[in-house]
Amino acid sequence: MTESGRRKRNRTVAQVSPRPWRDLRYAYAAIEPLSADEVALIHRSALTVLEDIGMRIQSGEARSLLRDAGFRVDEAAEQVWFDGDRVMELVALAPATATVRGRDPAKRVTMGEGHFALTAVGGPPFVSDLEKGRRYGSFEDQTNFLKLTAQSDLLQIMGGTSVEAHDLPPETRYLDYYLACCTLSDKPWKPLTIGRHRARDAIEMAKIWYGETEDQLAADPVFFLNTNSNTPLVLDSEIAQGVIEFARLGQPITVTPFALAGAMAPATVAGALVMQTAETLASCALVQAIRPGAPYIYGSFICNADMRTGSPAFGTPEYTFGAQASGQMARFYGLPWRSSNVNASNAPDAQAAYESMMSLWGAMTGRASVFNHGAGWLEGGLVGSYEKFILDLEMLGMMVAWQTPPAITEAEIGLQSMREVGAGGHFFGTDHTMERYKTAFYAPLVSDWSNFENWSERGSLDAAQRASKICKDMLGAYQPPTLDPATREALEDYVARRKREIQSARG
Amino acid sequence: MTESGRRKRNRTVAQVSPRPWRDLRYAYAAIEPLSADEVALIHRSALTVLEDIGMRIQSGEARSLLRDAGFRVDEAAEQVWFDGDRVMELVALAPATATVRGRDPAKRVTMGEGHFALTAVGGPPFVSDLEKGRRYGSFEDQTNFLKLTAQSDLLQIMGGTSVEAHDLPPETRYLDYYLACCTLSDKPWKPLTIGRHRARDAIEMAKIWYGETEDQLAADPVFFLNTNSNTPLVLDSEIAQGVIEFARLGQPITVTPFALAGAMAPATVAGALVMQTAETLASCALVQAIRPGAPYIYGSFICNADMRTGSPAFGTPEYTFGAQASGQMARFYGLPWRSSNVNASNAPDAQAAYESMMSLWGAMTGRASVFNHGAGWLEGGLVGSYEKFILDLEMLGMMVAWQTPPAITEAEIGLQSMREVGAGGHFFGTDHTMERYKTAFYAPLVSDWSNFENWSERGSLDAAQRASKICKDMLGAYQPPTLDPATREALEDYVARRKREIQSARG
Repeated sequence: MTESGRRKRNRTVAQVSPRPWRDLRYAYAAIEPLSADEVALIHRSALTVLEDIGMRIQSGEARSLLRDAGFRVDEAAEQVWFDGDRVMELVALAPATATVRGRDPAKRVTMGEGHFALTAVGGPPFVSDLEKGRRYGSFEDQTNFLKLTAQSDLLQIMGGTSVEAHDLPPETRYLDYYLACCTLSDKPWKPLTIGRHRARDAIEMAKIWYGETEDQLAADPVFFLNTNSNTPLVLDSEIAQGVIEFARLGQPITVTPFALAGAMAPATVAGALVMQTAETLASCALVQAIRPGAPYIYGSFICNADMRTGSPAFGTPEYTFGAQASGQMARFYGLPWRSSNVNASNAPDAQAAYESMMSLWGAMTGRASVFNHGAGWLEGGLVGSYEKFILDLEMLGMMVAWQTPPAITEAEIGLQSMREVGAGGHFFGTDHTMERYKTAFYAPLVSDWSNFENWSERGSLDAAQRASKICKDMLGAYQPPTLDPATREALEDYVARRKREIQSARG
Repeated sequence: MTESGRRKRNRTVAQVSPRPWRDLRYAYAAIEPLSADEVALIHRSALTVLEDIGMRIQSGEARSLLRDAGFRVDEAAEQVWFDGDRVMELVALAPATATVRGRDPAKRVTMGEGHFALTAVGGPPFVSDLEKGRRYGSFEDQTNFLKLTAQSDLLQIMGGTSVEAHDLPPETRYLDYYLACCTLSDKPWKPLTIGRHRARDAIEMAKIWYGETEDQLAADPVFFLNTNSNTPLVLDSEIAQGVIEFARLGQPITVTPFALAGAMAPATVAGALVMQTAETLASCALVQAIRPGAPYIYGSFICNADMRTGSPAFGTPEYTFGAQASGQMARFYGLPWRSSNVNASNAPDAQAAYESMMSLWGAMTGRASVFNHGAGWLEGGLVGSYEKFILDLEMLGMMVAWQTPPAITEAEIGLQSMREVGAGGHFFGTDHTMERYKTAFYAPLVSDWSNFENWSERGSLDAAQRASKICKDMLGAYQPPTLDPATREALEDYVARRKREIQSARG
C-alpha cells in the first residue's frame, strides 16, 4: 500500500471513531404527495376495513384486552372488529414523539416532530462479505455488526439482532444477543418482540444494565421495539405477547404491516396504504388499551411484488411514494413514523446503491422519525452485508450532511475574497479559503475522488472493495465501552441462569 | 442462456424501443432550502460582484453589445461592469420557459414551469466499457451514444457530442457530429457553442434538416445550447461568439458557471451561489441585449473541491443543497433552470450510483427544467461510460415514475378485494389484482429482483455487467428514423463542402 493509501485508511478509521453524540434533525419541509382528500379517503377506508372485516388477533390475552376496551370479539374465530370512533379515541392518546436512551445518559434519542434516528439492519438469516461469500450468519457475524453499529456516530440504536446467530441454540440465542448489546455498546438497543419470555428477559436485563427499577424504565423508556403484523389483517400470538409486555412498560413500539402490494395487499399503492393504516390503527389501539399514552410509532414498509415472479421489490418508485405517503398518514394521526433503507439487490453494487437511495430519499423527504435497517441490508433483507453496511454509512452520512444546511451569510459568501481574486484567478490560497478548507465540506468514508491514474495505481478498487477494507479497519479498531464489572457479572449470571432454565424446561 | 433469460432480454429491448413521446412534468412542490432573506442576500451580493468587480468579457463584439446596452466597458482590460438595475431590466425580459422541437414536430420539449427535459452526457474526452476498458473516444463511440440516446423515451434532446471523436480531424469533427445528430434521430439536438463558424454551420444544417428559414427557426426554436463561463468571472471569446450567434436566432441558451467551491469560487456553498448567480445574470443580460425576450436558462453546476487534493467532487451533500438552492434562485429570476446528473466515481459501481442519486434528487426535488449529462457521465465528466449510460436510464426511469403518482381512488384501493381475501389470505388471484398486474408497477431495466439462487445460476452478474448486456442489445436493435434522401444528400453535401473549405483555409 502506498503512503497516501495508508494515510487515507487511517483517516477513515478516525472518521468513524466516537464523535460527539448528535441529535439528528430535519432542516426541510416534507414532500407530501397526498391531497387532503386522499388522506381522508385512506383514513375512512382503513376504518371501514377495521369495522367490516376486522383483524384476526391470535393471542387470547390481546383479544381480552381489546374486548375490555370496547371492541367486538369472536373468540372462536379469533376475530376482532374495531369501531372507528373508539379506535380514534385510543389512537389520540399516543404522543407525537418517542424517546429512548442508552446506558450513557447522554445517548438519548428522540423520534418524531423533526427528530430522527438511524438503526442498523435487523433479522437476516444470511450474512455475506466479498471474501467468504454468502453463508448463514454466526454469533461472530452478529457481534461484528454490533461492533460496527457501536462505532458509528450515525447509528443511534443498537441491534435488531443484525444477522441470526445460527451457531447458537435457537431457544436461547436471544440471550447471547441481549448480552452482546449490553457489553459492546452503551447505546440503547432493540430486544426481540416475539414471545413473553423474550420480552421479560430483556426487561430484567435492562434493570441490571441501567441499574433501575421497572417504574424508572417505564417513566423514561429505553427500548425501541419493532415487530410486524402478518398482513393482511393478522396479529400473531407470540408477537402480540411481546407487544403486550413492552406496552405495559410504556416502551416505544411499532408493529409494521408487511404491505407487499400485489401479494399481501392489493396490487396498488392506494390499497397497500389502506391496509397498512388499518393494521397500524388496530395495533396502536391495542397498545393504548394496555397503557394509555404509551408511545406508538406508525410503521410503514409498503413495497410491491414483481408481478412476473412474485418476488418483493424494494426501493422502487412505488416504494418511495409509499414512504412519503405513509409519513403523511403518520402525521395525520399525530404519530412518529418508521421507514427503512432497503433494496432487493443480490450484490453490494450499483443496484443496491440506487435502490437504497430511493428508500432513503423517500424516508428523508417524508421526514421519517426512525429508519429501520439503516445499514447493512441486502437481498430484500435475507442478507446482512458487511460491505453494504459501510456503503450505507456513507449514504446515511451524506443524507445527514444534506440535512445540515450550510450558513448563507455575508461572512460565508466572502465578497472580499472575490475582490482579491478578481476575474480569472483562483481561491486556493485566499484567507477565506484557508480559514475554512479543513472542515468546509463533507469528508467521504468510501467515495474515492482521486483521478483515474491514482485510483488505478491503488488497484482500481470499486466502492464495495474499498468498503471491505474500511470494514476490517473498523472492526480492528473497535474498543468496547467501560462497563462496571459487577454489572457485567450480574448480566452474565442472569443469562447463564436463564439458559439453564430454558434448557431444563425443554429437556 | 436460459429461456427465462431470453425472455428477459427481449423484454428489455422492447422496453427501450420507441414509446409515445412524453411531456415530462413535476408532481410535487420543490424543496426550497433558502429563506427569503438568504435569496435576497445572494441576489444583492451577486449584483455587488457585477457592479464592483465586473467580468472579463474576452470577445470584442460582446463588449460592444454590452456597451450599447448601457454597461461600462474598459476595452484594454476587456472588463465590463454591470449596473444592477440595468442587469435586472434585461433579465426581466427572459421568459420562464424555453422550448425546442425535433424534426418530428411531435417531439417538442418544454423546459420550465413544471416541465423538464433529460439529456445525455456531453463532452468527455474518454470512453469506457467493461470489455475494452478506458480509452480515448472515437466517432464510433460517439455515434453509439447517439444511437442509445435516440432509442430512449426518457432522453428528449440528442447530443452534446456524447464523447469526443478523437479519430476525426479536430477542426471538422463537429460537422460529423452534426450530421450524425441529423441522421440518427428525429429529436432536437445540441450544437457546439464554441466559435462563430460552429454555430453558423449548425444553423445552416438546421435550415436543411427542418426545411425551414432562419425566421422560422427563430420563431419556434430548435436548439438547446449549453456552454460555460470560465469561473471566476470570465467569458471566453470563442464561447461568446457562439452565444451571440444563437442568441440572435433566439435559441434557448445556458452559460453555466463552473463554480467549483474552494477552487474557482470561495470554499463555501454560499460563495459559489453568489459567483454562479453573478455570472448567470451577466450572461443572461448579454443574451437579452442581443435579442430581447430570447430564452435563457439559469445554469448551475455548484460542486466542491476535495480540499486535500483539489479534485472536484460531484453528487456530494453540498452539490445537492447547491442544486436545490440554484433552483430557488432561478425561480426568483423567473428563469428555467439547468441541473445535472453527475458523480466522481472511476467505475460504474455503488459510488457512481449513490453520487448520481444525490445529484438527481437535488435536481428533481429542486424542479430542474433540464438535466444535462443525464445519462453516461462518469469520472467527473472525463469519461462517457456505456454501462453508466444504461444504469442512468434506470435511475431516470425510476425518478420519472416517482414523479407520476399513482391514483388514490376507491377503485384503486379495492375494498371489495380486501373483503374477499379477509384476514390471512393473499391477493394474487383477486379480480382487482388480475385487472392490474401487468402494468401495476414500474418495470425495471437493469434491476434484478430474482432470488439469490436464480441470480447465481445466471452468472451472478452485478448491475454494471447486466447494463453491459442491455447496452449491446440496444445497439443491436437500433433502427434509424426515416429521412428524406434529398435532405440527407443536401446535409452530406453541406458537410463535405464545409470540410473542404476548412481544410483549404487551414492548408
